[in-house]
Amino acid sequence: MIQIDDLDEYQLIKMAKDDMVHSMDDSSQMKKMLLHICSSGGKNIRPVMLILCTEMCGGNSTEGVKAALAIEFIHSASLIHDDVLDGGLVRRGVESAHKKYGIPAAILCGDFLISKAISLISGYGNDAVNEFGRAGMYMAEGETIDISSVDDEFKEKNYFECISKKTGSLFAASAAIGAYVAGADSETARKLRSFGENVGNAYQIVDDLLEYLNELEDKSSTYESVTLPLIYRRVMDHDKTVEKTVEQVCICVKNAKDILASFPSSDSRDKLELITDLITVDMLPADIL
Amino acid sequence: MIQIDDLDEYQLIKMAKDDMVHSMDDSSQMKKMLLHICSSGGKNIRPVMLILCTEMCGGNSTEGVKAALAIEFIHSASLIHDDVLDGGLVRRGVESAHKKYGIPAAILCGDFLISKAISLISGYGNDAVNEFGRAGMYMAEGETIDISSVDDEFKEKNYFECISKKTGSLFAASAAIGAYVAGADSETARKLRSFGENVGNAYQIVDDLLEYLNELEDKSSTYESVTLPLIYRRVMDHDKTVEKTVEQVCICVKNAKDILASFPSSDSRDKLELITDLITVDMLPADIL
Repeated sequence: MIQIDDLDEYQLIKMAKDDMVHSMDDSSQMKKMLLHICSSGGKNIRPVMLILCTEMCGGNSTEGVKAALAIEFIHSASLIHDDVLDGGLVRRGVESAHKKYGIPAAILCGDFLISKAISLISGYGNDAVNEFGRAGMYMAEGETIDISSVDDEFKEKNYFECISKKTGSLFAASAAIGAYVAGADSETARKLRSFGENVGNAYQIVDDLLEYLNELEDKSSTYESVTLPLIYRRVMDHDKTVEKTVEQVCICVKNAKDILASFPSSDSRDKLELITDLITVDMLPADIL
Repeated sequence: MIQIDDLDEYQLIKMAKDDMVHSMDDSSQMKKMLLHICSSGGKNIRPVMLILCTEMCGGNSTEGVKAALAIEFIHSASLIHDDVLDGGLVRRGVESAHKKYGIPAAILCGDFLISKAISLISGYGNDAVNEFGRAGMYMAEGETIDISSVDDEFKEKNYFECISKKTGSLFAASAAIGAYVAGADSETARKLRSFGENVGNAYQIVDDLLEYLNELEDKSSTYESVTLPLIYRRVMDHDKTVEKTVEQVCICVKNAKDILASFPSSDSRDKLELITDLITVDMLPADIL
């Protein structure tokens, strides 16, 4: 079965990212940290989504590479900062940045990546830069909601606001910026923003469900947020909890696919549909579907 | 004697900043933190410099307000993160953000402010956004150099690289973006970038000298960087150390003023000259000049 790293768009991003980090000036510890972070891989889902949205809107795959890297860099920055604030020790299979280089260097590395991302997005015009900044604000707000989500007052509604900001927003921006890169109109950007948000939300719910099911091994965070399964579990049994959570995943996935279906058939549309499944429903263990 | 907060440009920034924070959506802890940070005041030097540079280049004072706020917000973000990483407990006379709200919330508040700044700068075009991103990268690099500056290998040359990145870069970007806002050409932006960098470097050297002289009361950081006076003191006595450090301040101030002198005489030019003195030589105790 095709995986994300089989896509040309994935290879395009991976090479561009490696080139950029290797060509960096070596004056501070920064390059070493970035090489460590890049060595840990990552699926490059968001930047790949951006490139595919550009293609689906009639643009060229290479036009959006810098914007795609900007998205990947602000994502990496948020992971580095999240690991600092929730004490995560392992990230993508390697030691987290703050564990290896210390908290101060890790905070600054995140700040550097956000700023590098600003430079990278600067050439794509007002709409793209603004979309990018807005996503960054939402991510920080969502994470702030997340870290204070420790009591029974945190309900389904709060959860969805939290994940839409924390996770959905950057997927949303990736897809919308992909549209802007291709010169699409604002209605198209709006549709793709909604597509991205639905995919991102589904992705987060799956992640939370897998954690609930103890399926995630690569996470040694000392912090625990209130997630959708935990909210459901307050008032229903385990099986029903899983069933209702999966239902929510399916709703988001369906929303996303309905939006894709409103675009003319194309290779890039097929790939976006493929990715949507790969990072959501395909992640779930077969026995719960 | 006129102070920075007597200037119309200062009042313009102060009001715009207050308006922006008060009009924020209240969904997370973010607004509360921002109100706390704004309550602590600050001299708004960098945004005032931006507005004055716009005016000196023939632009209108209100055109650059959002860009000026962007500069102030990324500056606030860097202060919040710096306080986290060096354990600073007091900032501008009030409790530091991480002391009051915890390290996780403070890190996220900084990230939020950087992203808010991206949205604010997004309308000023490619050059301004790129300048802004570059400054952010330099600030993070400079701070990274600073926190690793703990041994005898840290020389005068390293110090100047460090402060140019850590402090000079944002003053430089403020002045250059001020030029861009007025639609000035790239040569004018280049000159003003150099003006800003010199002012910023002088400001930092003065700050380090005052710390050396134990004049700064409002700083209870647990961290100590290698500063210019400490580097000089390795090889000369106290008096000579002070004299040589002041000399470096005067060189930067002279460079800055020479650049200003190449612009036609104007109110805004006079104000830029005033600010240059106010935040550098005027800060030094009379007996060492």
